[in-house]
Amino acid sequence: MNKEIFMDLLQAREFKAVRSILNVMNAVDIAALMSELEDKELALAFRLIPKTKAADVFANMNNSMQSYLVEIFTEKELKELLDELFLDDTVDLLEDLPANLVTRILEAVDQEKRTKINTLLNYPEDSAGSVMTTEYVDLKKTDTVRQALSHIKRTGIHKETIYTCYVLEHRRLLGIVSAKDLMTMDDDLTMEELMETEIISVSTHTDQEEVAKLFSKYDLLAIPVLDQDDLMVGIVTFDDAMDVIEEETTEDMALMGAVTPSEKGYFEASVFEHAKNRIVWLLVLMISATFTGMIITKYENAFAAVPLLVSFIPMLMDTGGNCGSQSSTLIIRGLALDEFEFKDIFRIMFKEFRVSLLVGAFLALANGLRIFLMYKDISLAIVVSLSLVATIIISKLIGCTLPLFAKKFHFDPAIMAAPLITTIVDTCSVMIYFQIATMIFHLSV
Amino acid sequence: MNKEIFMDLLQAREFKAVRSILNVMNAVDIAALMSELEDKELALAFRLIPKTKAADVFANMNNSMQSYLVEIFTEKELKELLDELFLDDTVDLLEDLPANLVTRILEAVDQEKRTKINTLLNYPEDSAGSVMTTEYVDLKKTDTVRQALSHIKRTGIHKETIYTCYVLEHRRLLGIVSAKDLMTMDDDLTMEELMETEIISVSTHTDQEEVAKLFSKYDLLAIPVLDQDDLMVGIVTFDDAMDVIEEETTEDMALMGAVTPSEKGYFEASVFEHAKNRIVWLLVLMISATFTGMIITKYENAFAAVPLLVSFIPMLMDTGGNCGSQSSTLIIRGLALDEFEFKDIFRIMFKEFRVSLLVGAFLALANGLRIFLMYKDISLAIVVSLSLVATIIISKLIGCTLPLFAKKFHFDPAIMAAPLITTIVDTCSVMIYFQIATMIFHLSV
Repeated sequence: MNKEIFMDLLQAREFKAVRSILNVMNAVDIAALMSELEDKELALAFRLIPKTKAADVFANMNNSMQSYLVEIFTEKELKELLDELFLDDTVDLLEDLPANLVTRILEAVDQEKRTKINTLLNYPEDSAGSVMTTEYVDLKKTDTVRQALSHIKRTGIHKETIYTCYVLEHRRLLGIVSAKDLMTMDDDLTMEELMETEIISVSTHTDQEEVAKLFSKYDLLAIPVLDQDDLMVGIVTFDDAMDVIEEETTEDMALMGAVTPSEKGYFEASVFEHAKNRIVWLLVLMISATFTGMIITKYENAFAAVPLLVSFIPMLMDTGGNCGSQSSTLIIRGLALDEFEFKDIFRIMFKEFRVSLLVGAFLALANGLRIFLMYKDISLAIVVSLSLVATIIISKLIGCTLPLFAKKFHFDPAIMAAPLITTIVDTCSVMIYFQIATMIFHLSV
Repeated sequence: MNKEIFMDLLQAREFKAVRSILNVMNAVDIAALMSELEDKELALAFRLIPKTKAADVFANMNNSMQSYLVEIFTEKELKELLDELFLDDTVDLLEDLPANLVTRILEAVDQEKRTKINTLLNYPEDSAGSVMTTEYVDLKKTDTVRQALSHIKRTGIHKETIYTCYVLEHRRLLGIVSAKDLMTMDDDLTMEELMETEIISVSTHTDQEEVAKLFSKYDLLAIPVLDQDDLMVGIVTFDDAMDVIEEETTEDMALMGAVTPSEKGYFEASVFEHAKNRIVWLLVLMISATFTGMIITKYENAFAAVPLLVSFIPMLMDTGGNCGSQSSTLIIRGLALDEFEFKDIFRIMFKEFRVSLLVGAFLALANGLRIFLMYKDISLAIVVSLSLVATIIISKLIGCTLPLFAKKFHFDPAIMAAPLITTIVDTCSVMIYFQIATMIFHLSV
């Protein structure tokens, strides 16, 4: 849909045309289109969306648009919206609204829904409980396929997903039946005969990242959430899992780039917020880089005697940093994908050690040859090459172990990425370099 | 399931017990369990899996297990497996098998399936055509809900997903009906009345990454694939989309850590392969770091006169590198999420410029103060602080623009991450530093 045409029609108050456009567009695209409107136009346009689609569009809007709409809605409009909105989307909305609007919403829903919302709001942030919905299809084990289908026809329309159905007995989960089974199996089979009893479930307190991993591992559409008494309280659906995966990847990448993760988009966050999210890391890293500087100062005599030594510092520091980043990146990603765990540390170290020997030998040779040809100085070539091999071995070992230790001690392994590793490795490489140089050139410190 | 118990039962030839365990476990876990078995045990265990589950387990196995099984299977076993295997999984399998086994498989399927497989194999790698399946539910626009449901009951069982149904007329896609609609709407409504006509589709040549993005944007379960004549040829299902997202993220992270991406897992790849995937980048970066070294050599007189200057090189280089990485990481991630595009470059540069002023001022102040207090040298403090501000501004501008240019020229923006940015920024920071130093200390070069 062309934005300009839509705006023009809206401003010309061509409601019929606007309505028919909104009628065929899907909710995600309508929300994106509306994000470009002024507040007043937004309210007008929102009221022209077909009733059946309005809640879905609302759920796809950003926070400031939602706040504005909740604020200007009449009581009746708000009630209509909340009736259509899935419970998990309502909770998402409440988590980000200012307090006065939260009160408005809680007053607009009935007692039963209010209780459910309050329960959901009480689960820890980023837990399965906080992202789940309590609307799902429940069946009895004695139901036949025919009965199940007619039960769904009567009650299913307001459930977020009806493709995975849950066979319950006194709120205890006995088994899972897919809509595919219901649609393709014999009408007289009972749920007890059909249901899958090896159930993959999570608890209300399971971290959302763990939940999301189960989705991609088992290709699930929904996962049941059980409370501490093993009673079923809700489901997490695959669209929420996809959002979580995206969110967690963004967070990991920010950390790996030495930025404090933020939930706001790039343009959404102000210049001041951006600066705040970056200064802390820069400060920490700057201070540790200062140590590297101090070590260099200690060897002032060395580079006074052989000034050329200084010119290899950037190459050694960078190569060390890059080698360390390579290892830490692979380990961080492997940990995120559950490819290995802490107990594999020795296997990993041994592998990285062998890789670093190969890489080190190759780079040292290339570099040593270059230095010898350029400066005709065999000692210098040997000093730089030896330092390079040692730096590469140490960088790779530091790069692969630190993320594993972070994981072991329940930190996010992503903090042990390029920036931090680089700074740590810098100090090591400069120390190794000058140590080797003073030895080979017989310099005094 | 406890691995040891399973092994013991298998070795003791307790087939009944093994079979009943395999009966309740799900396909993903069985595949994981089997990956720990020796070849011979693997063949034995695989034959004990219930027929209905065997193809699903097979699809979840790694390549070497699949190759082994295809090789030892009898003609009959192979036929049975291929009958149950979804077409997209069959194509995945063929793409990774040695040629003699490919021939074996193509001979085992019937003419019709062979033609379909060959068509799928001919689509470009990583295109929608290569990941799609040709098995989907098609309906006619005159079908009623009742007719549609009975059509699905007859034919649906072998379709990979039946949750999104396609209304076709002469293979042209008229609209989409969800299984939810079929299960909850009135039995006498026709597909024409029910169907969604604003269709999100892709072409056979669309890149799989673009396809995956549509899934998370619109929370889709399946997406129809059209050929060049706009005729429907298949669907991509959400489980494939999730795999693609995971694969692409892994690839991006590897690139951002200066590693050539590989499809093999960490332990799966040999030491030699690991070394090969890392050396190229290290070599390129090492050569460019050598330039930084040469620039330093040019200013030999400067640090001969003021040796302390050398000790601030690591801090400036690291801070510049980190600032650049911060910006490039945010931009790379934003591009991956379609948060912005090349045309936003000036808006982004302006934002990064303001952020760098704030960050620069803060860090320069902290650093200048420290240097002044430690060395009581106001000129030195000014030189380092000014260099720091200039470095930070330039790093952030380089860091934010390079990924945008990469995208513009159809490279993967992820290559413009920490390692490359760091090396480029290093050269700049050292140049700026010595330029300012020679000016303020009135040194001759």
